[in-house]
Amino acid sequence: MMSTDIGMRITVNLPYTQAVQKTTDALTAEGFGVLMQIDMQATLKQKLDVDFRRYVILGVCNPPLAHRALAANLDIGLLLPCNVTIYEEGDGSVVTAGDPVAMLGVLHGDPVAHEVAIDASTRLQRVIARLKQFG
Amino acid sequence: MMSTDIGMRITVNLPYTQAVQKTTDALTAEGFGVLMQIDMQATLKQKLDVDFRRYVILGVCNPPLAHRALAANLDIGLLLPCNVTIYEEGDGSVVTAGDPVAMLGVLHGDPVAHEVAIDASTRLQRVIARLKQFG
Repeated sequence: MMSTDIGMRITVNLPYTQAVQKTTDALTAEGFGVLMQIDMQATLKQKLDVDFRRYVILGVCNPPLAHRALAANLDIGLLLPCNVTIYEEGDGSVVTAGDPVAMLGVLHGDPVAHEVAIDASTRLQRVIARLKQFG
Repeated sequence: MMSTDIGMRITVNLPYTQAVQKTTDALTAEGFGVLMQIDMQATLKQKLDVDFRRYVILGVCNPPLAHRALAANLDIGLLLPCNVTIYEEGDGSVVTAGDPVAMLGVLHGDPVAHEVAIDASTRLQRVIARLKQFG
């Protein structure tokens, strides 16, 4: 596992489609549902007719955490869902997860948001750790 | 228009459904497509059986800006799409847009990301300004 400026990253020896599946499984195991899925390769082809590598953005959400944060601060919706990206890299794939603590860090002095962010961050670290077996 | 810590906010004298429509129109006029739409009221009802106000998160994206940023930095997917939220408040609605400059501020020292963020931020400010007629 490596840190990016804004999240966590792991390279796995899985082709893209399998990497997406194993990441989704790991997210489910940590209580995250996938609320949306944006295929950036397809989007960029359709909108701009440019070729891009296979790249998906998963918008993931742990409902109890989201509800707790939103009930305390309606602006939290600007930071939901958490993003996990998967893209192809050579024969393998790279999985990154945005770190909610870095993301919610822009909300200064909101104790509930901070607590929820730490909880979500810990869970996403476990998601990435679950993918280590494929590293 | 008011600033939140992480974005821009405007209160409009439109019922929720109309506010969603007028916001989508304003986004289209500024070159943003709506890539995803998360109905938080429905999600929280379904997952947790709790009642929440009408609240939608729109994931919006300007494809040329997204492509430029992604081509320069694959981690940018963690910050895409930009979020716009609309929720009911009394007889009217509140529209908020995340400020890409605040969001991308977590990516220190990436000049392309910074330039794209300023462009996207200016466009979203115009989206909010277009909604002033309903304020």
